[in-house]
Amino acid sequence: MEIFHTREEYRAALEARAALPAGFKAGVASLSFFPEELGRAKEYPMNLALILLDRPTPSFHALFTRNLFCGAPVVIGRERLKEKYARGILVNNKISNVAAPGGVEAQESVLAALAEALGERQERFFPASTGIIGWKLPAAEMRAKVGELSGNLQSTSLLPVAEAMMTTDAFPKVRSARCGEGVIVAAAKGAGMIEPNLATMLVFVLTDVQVSRSSLKKCLTRAAAATLNRISIDSDQSTSDMVIALSSNIKPAVGEEAFARGLEEVLGLLSGDIVRNGEGVTHVMQVTIEGAPSVELAESAGKAMVNSPLVKTAVFGNDPNVGRLVSSLGDFFGNRGFALPRSLLSVSIGGIEIFAGDRFLLDEEKEKRLFAYLDECSFSLAGRFPPHDRSVNITVGLNVGTKRATVLGADLSYDYVKENASYRS
Amino acid sequence: MEIFHTREEYRAALEARAALPAGFKAGVASLSFFPEELGRAKEYPMNLALILLDRPTPSFHALFTRNLFCGAPVVIGRERLKEKYARGILVNNKISNVAAPGGVEAQESVLAALAEALGERQERFFPASTGIIGWKLPAAEMRAKVGELSGNLQSTSLLPVAEAMMTTDAFPKVRSARCGEGVIVAAAKGAGMIEPNLATMLVFVLTDVQVSRSSLKKCLTRAAAATLNRISIDSDQSTSDMVIALSSNIKPAVGEEAFARGLEEVLGLLSGDIVRNGEGVTHVMQVTIEGAPSVELAESAGKAMVNSPLVKTAVFGNDPNVGRLVSSLGDFFGNRGFALPRSLLSVSIGGIEIFAGDRFLLDEEKEKRLFAYLDECSFSLAGRFPPHDRSVNITVGLNVGTKRATVLGADLSYDYVKENASYRS
Repeated sequence: MEIFHTREEYRAALEARAALPAGFKAGVASLSFFPEELGRAKEYPMNLALILLDRPTPSFHALFTRNLFCGAPVVIGRERLKEKYARGILVNNKISNVAAPGGVEAQESVLAALAEALGERQERFFPASTGIIGWKLPAAEMRAKVGELSGNLQSTSLLPVAEAMMTTDAFPKVRSARCGEGVIVAAAKGAGMIEPNLATMLVFVLTDVQVSRSSLKKCLTRAAAATLNRISIDSDQSTSDMVIALSSNIKPAVGEEAFARGLEEVLGLLSGDIVRNGEGVTHVMQVTIEGAPSVELAESAGKAMVNSPLVKTAVFGNDPNVGRLVSSLGDFFGNRGFALPRSLLSVSIGGIEIFAGDRFLLDEEKEKRLFAYLDECSFSLAGRFPPHDRSVNITVGLNVGTKRATVLGADLSYDYVKENASYRS
Repeated sequence: MEIFHTREEYRAALEARAALPAGFKAGVASLSFFPEELGRAKEYPMNLALILLDRPTPSFHALFTRNLFCGAPVVIGRERLKEKYARGILVNNKISNVAAPGGVEAQESVLAALAEALGERQERFFPASTGIIGWKLPAAEMRAKVGELSGNLQSTSLLPVAEAMMTTDAFPKVRSARCGEGVIVAAAKGAGMIEPNLATMLVFVLTDVQVSRSSLKKCLTRAAAATLNRISIDSDQSTSDMVIALSSNIKPAVGEEAFARGLEEVLGLLSGDIVRNGEGVTHVMQVTIEGAPSVELAESAGKAMVNSPLVKTAVFGNDPNVGRLVSSLGDFFGNRGFALPRSLLSVSIGGIEIFAGDRFLLDEEKEKRLFAYLDECSFSLAGRFPPHDRSVNITVGLNVGTKRATVLGADLSYDYVKENASYRS
């Protein structure tokens, strides 16, 4: 576990994590624009960020939101998966390019300008956007900046990109892990609600470890399934969520299993950061369902628990409310017609057993310990950095099988409501 | 629509609604007890309420929670459905008798004392309990009160029962409808969170309209499916939810269709009251999904929308956030692999069209009207009565079929978090 006392301490850790793998450059530029929708009434700032491979790579893959009403970057990104090579990613904040007329054409025109500036084919760039939905991309202003952006590239750190794509994120999120002679580095934006709309999650994974395209696809899909896809903050999947992975193939391969483990480590840590940065979150919940008949059922039951508003508010209040935990499981299994025997069920919070043998195992002293544990796991982002990596660990033993899954969620606080209820202005 | 300016006005309306059907009596009694779990540290009050038929009836049915970890009253109630006759319902507040050792035996001992006092078989009484989970029923104190309770019966009003079973309910809930020469009257408790745990919903439906047991079962199941089962406040189904219907068979039958319609009217109105009384609720949302390929899909899509925390907080903030509405649908259908064409989709709020032809139909003037509409639909229960019956009506046209369903939900406010986060004390 890491503990940070100041923003500077967190920043130093980020800088160490964010060192770019061999074969990558990164750069940012900013611009301002008048949204057409407001009739030149107000000027907005926007950041552009570019991740560029020194050479086009055949080793790339991307995962996209399953939300049916996806944004233009997702529409374009899905097409890019048919290409033989990828060269980089162009990200913007402020406007998500979702449900805006002519969104695909506008985004492609910016990529075309970038490609021309770099002497590359535009089909080798993935676009990514996060921000207001319904508004049009300021394509002309963005095109005018691609030259400056290309001139700002450096090969040392991914941190400027992680910062440039922030919207209401309280802090930049970067994680990395050594992998043989190479490294896996990933940056994330999200999943705090953006002004005024959706919880977009953008994750970019860069590595210099040699990996085939098919192996990267397999490993990324598996690692995301066990990490990013087991985050449940709002139970909503946004219109723009995406994960893009690129390898420069410069360092020696490490074998598929080792590579998958490295990816899972990085994405697991990043998942914790994403939850920790959810708007108004004061506790990360990590629920592990063990002894399940299938991984799918374990995952669904865990999500039902972390999505229960009654469980979420109890954790916010540092209340070890075992009744709500057990009831959320009874609701989940009962409504699926799955006759889970309550007598086999065990539940613990922070390693303290609170339900077993069909009985609540609580007394005054234990409730005090549980309250202290929940309190210790709470945090505030007032300083704009995560003071620690702790989560409220809830373990449920179903004892009817051998499968398990861990899911991440967040509590439900006053500030969540406040930040999501304010009228768009 | 009804509007109430004072608590007295609401009470007068309740009294008119609560007139008992022919052949029924009702009564209440109160007691106090020291919970065994607290070692005589604190005295608690409890209300007992009895609904009694003048004669045992063969025309009864009950529906129970599908939560797997149900309370003792649900366990006993399910057994009662095997009986030939029912005579009444004994309700208590304060303790739900869920997950308490010896719960079934304790509850049966109280029913045995009641049956003896009334000269009836105990198997003809349904028990219902709401309140704290994990604690034992004060069975001895309850048994000592059944004589007084039996002496308090009157044949005029169901209102004392509706009041006695309240826990954190802000106001008593009773609805009724004429049905031929008879009447259908129903009272509800819920679904505000109870101290400290679960949102128990108790609904008791009384009628003097002649109806066979099989017909009552069919009509109750159908009416509840279209009303009570389409409420979604917390997305949690409690361990104690139940609906019990009794007929005295004194007034002429009206035909199954007319009876079912009457039941649906009463339970529909009661459903609105239950949502309106949810803790911290400031808007009732009524979402109608039309043009669906099946009723089930329409209902599930509507529930996904009213359960989306992003939609709920937007409505709390009087924010006509069409982006969140459309995204919640995209999330729902996309994750079910159902390729809903967005170009066919239409969405309106309060009859004002906000999405159609794959475009957001919003401008500044329309946003102001929508804000005003949402504001008009909001309410406060500070006066402990519902000032109006308005709901935020959201209509979604999928235009891919002919089926429809309407679901009810609530917004998500600061007060919801506050009332559900407080540590048990």
